[in-house]
Amino acid sequence: MTEIIRIGMVGGGEGAFIGAVHRMAARLDGQFRLVAGAFSSDAQRARASATTLGIEPARAYADWQAMLDGEARRADGIEAVVIVTPNHLHARVARDCLSAGLHVLCDKPLATTLDEACALAQIARASQRLFGVTYTYCGYALVRHARALVAAGEIGEIRSVQVRYAQDWLSTPVEMSGNKQAAWRSDPQQAGDGGAIADIGTHAYHLARFVSGLDAQALLADLSNAVPGRRVDDNAHVLLRYANGARGMLWASQTAPGNANNLELAVYGSRGGLSWRQEVPDELWLAPLGDHPRVIRRGATGLSDAARAVTRVPMGHPEGYLEAFANLYADFAAAIHAHRTGESCTPANTFPTIEDGLDGMRFIQTALTSSREGGVWMPLR
Amino acid sequence: MTEIIRIGMVGGGEGAFIGAVHRMAARLDGQFRLVAGAFSSDAQRARASATTLGIEPARAYADWQAMLDGEARRADGIEAVVIVTPNHLHARVARDCLSAGLHVLCDKPLATTLDEACALAQIARASQRLFGVTYTYCGYALVRHARALVAAGEIGEIRSVQVRYAQDWLSTPVEMSGNKQAAWRSDPQQAGDGGAIADIGTHAYHLARFVSGLDAQALLADLSNAVPGRRVDDNAHVLLRYANGARGMLWASQTAPGNANNLELAVYGSRGGLSWRQEVPDELWLAPLGDHPRVIRRGATGLSDAARAVTRVPMGHPEGYLEAFANLYADFAAAIHAHRTGESCTPANTFPTIEDGLDGMRFIQTALTSSREGGVWMPLR
Amino acid sequence: MTEIIRIGMVGGGEGAFIGAVHRMAARLDGQFRLVAGAFSSDAQRARASATTLGIEPARAYADWQAMLDGEARRADGIEAVVIVTPNHLHARVARDCLSAGLHVLCDKPLATTLDEACALAQIARASQRLFGVTYTYCGYALVRHARALVAAGEIGEIRSVQVRYAQDWLSTPVEMSGNKQAAWRSDPQQAGDGGAIADIGTHAYHLARFVSGLDAQALLADLSNAVPGRRVDDNAHVLLRYANGARGMLWASQTAPGNANNLELAVYGSRGGLSWRQEVPDELWLAPLGDHPRVIRRGATGLSDAARAVTRVPMGHPEGYLEAFANLYADFAAAIHAHRTGESCTPANTFPTIEDGLDGMRFIQTALTSSREGGVWMPLR
Amino acid sequence: MTEIIRIGMVGGGEGAFIGAVHRMAARLDGQFRLVAGAFSSDAQRARASATTLGIEPARAYADWQAMLDGEARRADGIEAVVIVTPNHLHARVARDCLSAGLHVLCDKPLATTLDEACALAQIARASQRLFGVTYTYCGYALVRHARALVAAGEIGEIRSVQVRYAQDWLSTPVEMSGNKQAAWRSDPQQAGDGGAIADIGTHAYHLARFVSGLDAQALLADLSNAVPGRRVDDNAHVLLRYANGARGMLWASQTAPGNANNLELAVYGSRGGLSWRQEVPDELWLAPLGDHPRVIRRGATGLSDAARAVTRVPMGHPEGYLEAFANLYADFAAAIHAHRTGESCTPANTFPTIEDGLDGMRFIQTALTSSREGGVWMPLR
Repeated sequence: MTEIIRIGMVGGGEGAFIGAVHRMAARLDGQFRLVAGAFSSDAQRARASATTLGIEPARAYADWQAMLDGEARRADGIEAVVIVTPNHLHARVARDCLSAGLHVLCDKPLATTLDEACALAQIARASQRLFGVTYTYCGYALVRHARALVAAGEIGEIRSVQVRYAQDWLSTPVEMSGNKQAAWRSDPQQAGDGGAIADIGTHAYHLARFVSGLDAQALLADLSNAVPGRRVDDNAHVLLRYANGARGMLWASQTAPGNANNLELAVYGSRGGLSWRQEVPDELWLAPLGDHPRVIRRGATGLSDAARAVTRVPMGHPEGYLEAFANLYADFAAAIHAHRTGESCTPANTFPTIEDGLDGMRFIQTALTSSREGGVWMPLR
Repeated sequence: MTEIIRIGMVGGGEGAFIGAVHRMAARLDGQFRLVAGAFSSDAQRARASATTLGIEPARAYADWQAMLDGEARRADGIEAVVIVTPNHLHARVARDCLSAGLHVLCDKPLATTLDEACALAQIARASQRLFGVTYTYCGYALVRHARALVAAGEIGEIRSVQVRYAQDWLSTPVEMSGNKQAAWRSDPQQAGDGGAIADIGTHAYHLARFVSGLDAQALLADLSNAVPGRRVDDNAHVLLRYANGARGMLWASQTAPGNANNLELAVYGSRGGLSWRQEVPDELWLAPLGDHPRVIRRGATGLSDAARAVTRVPMGHPEGYLEAFANLYADFAAAIHAHRTGESCTPANTFPTIEDGLDGMRFIQTALTSSREGGVWMPLR
Repeated sequence: MTEIIRIGMVGGGEGAFIGAVHRMAARLDGQFRLVAGAFSSDAQRARASATTLGIEPARAYADWQAMLDGEARRADGIEAVVIVTPNHLHARVARDCLSAGLHVLCDKPLATTLDEACALAQIARASQRLFGVTYTYCGYALVRHARALVAAGEIGEIRSVQVRYAQDWLSTPVEMSGNKQAAWRSDPQQAGDGGAIADIGTHAYHLARFVSGLDAQALLADLSNAVPGRRVDDNAHVLLRYANGARGMLWASQTAPGNANNLELAVYGSRGGLSWRQEVPDELWLAPLGDHPRVIRRGATGLSDAARAVTRVPMGHPEGYLEAFANLYADFAAAIHAHRTGESCTPANTFPTIEDGLDGMRFIQTALTSSREGGVWMPLR
Repeated sequence: MTEIIRIGMVGGGEGAFIGAVHRMAARLDGQFRLVAGAFSSDAQRARASATTLGIEPARAYADWQAMLDGEARRADGIEAVVIVTPNHLHARVARDCLSAGLHVLCDKPLATTLDEACALAQIARASQRLFGVTYTYCGYALVRHARALVAAGEIGEIRSVQVRYAQDWLSTPVEMSGNKQAAWRSDPQQAGDGGAIADIGTHAYHLARFVSGLDAQALLADLSNAVPGRRVDDNAHVLLRYANGARGMLWASQTAPGNANNLELAVYGSRGGLSWRQEVPDELWLAPLGDHPRVIRRGATGLSDAARAVTRVPMGHPEGYLEAFANLYADFAAAIHAHRTGESCTPANTFPTIEDGLDGMRFIQTALTSSREGGVWMPLR
């Protein structure tokens, strides 16, 4: 048994969605223990959260600086910090954690502006610390298998990438009637200028890139706003062009009734196509050109090492969102163990890094600019 | 029993896909009889086709002009002509048929250029004859129901339209190895300058317009070419903007392995969303905002008159492509019967007309221009 | 062009479901012409139906005997009769048609009792005339492909057969409130003693046998009655045992809300399994043991001759119930053409015959007896 | 924060499937800590497992008696035991744990014979300790919602229950070639006389009963054996009769190629039907009679308290098998907390108890007897 990794959390107090998800993901494989936290800027809420979570009172901090100070003084202090605040705090907290010598696991998007993200990336690269960004969906076993199939040439040269991420929870102006999740996400001060493009579009973009292995060269975005009075986009149409001539389409919407968390990806190549839907994540369709489509199930015989490494239960016993999330935690744990001993940890299929986070910010910023200029082509890097 | 309508066909000889489809559709309800034809420019093939189809030898003509002449001389001559030639002949044949006083049912696209289509439309409008264009997919009962739901405000104000039409049969350069269907479709002389955009993109565009009831104001197209050496596009990415601020995305591809004839439409509004897939046409999903999605099946109790009018067999007994096609024929027959007696025939839900054909040409031409100019926004009308 | 086959119809007047289905199926390929009929025992309704159908008044007969007499006197008399009456008339009409030297295509079940069916079978065998029974579902292209896969050993030795046919239209006592279809089906005088077991159970049984190629040796039935006051079963549970040790389960219900015409079959063998659902008939799942399941689509490359012979439109253009029905008509036409010239017509994959009809009656009768005796095992042949 | 529950485990050493599942489920919500174990009868394997799991060496015991003794002497001893041994040890271990005053969470089936199960039930009832049996599938949120819908009369009086549990992993004699999971399951000495009927049939039976709320009065079973040489059934066909006249069918198979863990349930009543599939557990179909089917998704607005109580992440973020399992652990934790303070814990929707385990044994035993006698009806209680 390798030693359990002690972590602290910033944000994620009671009522926050993603904080609870991180905690469950961290617990699932028993490799982490949450021992400290600055769960809320509201002191009472922070304390209540700590109590519920079984954190020692002394380690329930008022803010992240206090946490970094307090933990630094302990022999059993934390090794890593999970950042689950609204977006505008990501970069500041992360920078301080890195300065304190801690590893960081941070929610996406990395920051609220590309400049801020670039500055953070420089610090992170220099820090010799691990920096993970929770692009959750690359944690799914069959997403990793899809990537492996593409890399192995199973679908040939890629020609087209189709990715969609549709939700409906912002179909009405819920941010104006007390929905906290909606409120900060639609406030440019807290979320940045991007709405759907930043909240979910960046997930779709990362997924497409993760599986296809292709970097887009240019994009064109038409961001729009279905709900009157909303300050950020809630529907994003993006066209992509890749270096090899392939083309992509990306649709992200939070105002598409009937869609809960409908992320779907299809990649088409010269020899075949594959498609995957997050809401039924244990199935991957592979259509070799000229042959019958195959339905590849998680846990099936003969899957790639990448998929098998993150498979907990056999075929037919569904794994879901928390398991995908936990796979990122498992990758992060493996990297931390390697870091402890000075080994290198093979980067293949491990957690998304600061570079992925930065790439996501570049996508968001470029899309925002393209759209503001009327929907024009912009180079992406 | 109203009198059976006598029709002639131009094109559609042995081996042609769409000619056989038209004939089956025309037969299904027993309202038409195919009695004459100019089935092929190859005289021997034309005769052989006529024999197989049970056409009297005297009415198997060498070309369409001969057919128009020959039939004009008979008391029992044809009343209408079905045009199923390659695209470049559509307009010429149609013009001559109208001049001969015959009704016309013509395949899409209407012509190879917008100018040619405009000229034809002027003739058609002046002709007092019926002109149908076989945008097949609006013949499906549930497509008509979807249109009725939208028109009745069931999904509120439309915000987003997502339409895709994906195939894979042109994933390799089959036009260079003897596939006739592929050969003329990828020859600009016969098909026009558009490939996938004209062959299937126009279907997707028409379907979206038919159901949403919205006319796009502007589009931006990025047409591409997955197969080296192909002379027309085989993958088309199109963005749309509507007058009410709604946005649309349209993807048409003939190089997407795993897709046979995968046309799917989703329309999202302020009160709900709906989606439909051509490959499982007897199901329509309706998601009222905030409630559970409903799976509406063709033949279910309480469907719209528009759907019930084109329902032949009960719920659970699948209808398909030929039935959808036959619905256009049934609409066309009703219009001809009304024309005979001088009655007006309500246009709602009936067959697509010359105006729809013209609109489709405008879409194709604008997309081609937008793409040639690098993928820029162009007004659509 | 071979000569069109002239047919007459008994039953199937206005408002009847299956009569209209037969007529559309007969028309689809242009090989039959309906020229005579005794469409209803109600003379006025019979005449009205004939008028609507474009039948000459002289060939609209008051009853089937009159039709047989009248047509026998004509040089252009009918060659075959389609029987679409309620069940209790099937055998009487069929016998008279055979005596008149005509071919017969008859709805299932063949008769109302096994004795009656046996007597008819003897006459049919001696008649030198063709006798088809419309077990519709074996007309689907992928059902025929499934049969071909089984016959070719693709799934190995069969171990288990699971078949279900569920509907919901009899969930309430609609036969008591004017539903004609329900009224005769639940009247033992007109339908026989079987309800769901005879109306749809026999379809399920035939389908299982058609695909598996196995004859059941014994069955045990538990027939029940969900709707109080109904005179026949509306829910049937049947267990089957086959000679090779394989087992089967068959469920037929007309009181299962949510099911429209949900016929589904799965066959499992030592090397693989396959499954098919009538409501999405253009997909067949084949799961080779230890490999990924394949989704076989109608029209795909490499399908069996049996499937290709009954494929009208390409993959992705759905065919449905009417096409399946028309395939039986096409088989019947081929057999009649062969009969005209004295050739033999290969029996493989052609229409179900009197022997299939008789087998179906044996199934119904044995199930009724088994259930009446409390649900006991009975030999099936 | 209530105090974490300390548990010990018997069985579940390295390589065992279900032991790892229990541990992940126990960890997910942070309410349990595994602190002791007798993980294997093989001492070396037991120690290795303990090390991997981070168990103190002193609390890694050679067998369960040693664990009970050792833990009894500690102030921080375990409060509950999880039993994940092969079936033949369940009852013995459970009895000893109860005698030691510990709560028990035991895998199904409860024992290898009904007599053994009855004896254990008597002890359990007298013990004042909690006894849970892990019928996993009732842990799914939508299964609980289905039960709530039935209980609320949403589908009216139940008429028919259809349940299937199909797998394919025993399609070949893997028990003879080193598959440990298969080896003990097909050894009557370790598993009892039932094969598929006990391993998965009992899950299907429990699920049907949990959702329908109906107790079967009689059953008839036809158990068979697809793989030559196998000592237990691998395919089970069961008919059920309920007190209210409803009927049921149950199919359990481990030799059905293409099925991974395909458990599906449909319940039909006088007012509607519902259906659910374990492999896509976040969807429940509800078909009100005469209306469009609804697709109810886990996390949707307006679901029952029972469903909401076990929902961790929002609609569209799939939960799976481990979450369902964890829901049983959460129920068990709630009951233990209530037990500590002497409160009663509402039984609704909580974990399956010894009575459910006993009921399952009665089902297995009756099915075995029915089948041995040739497939005859037997009263079930």
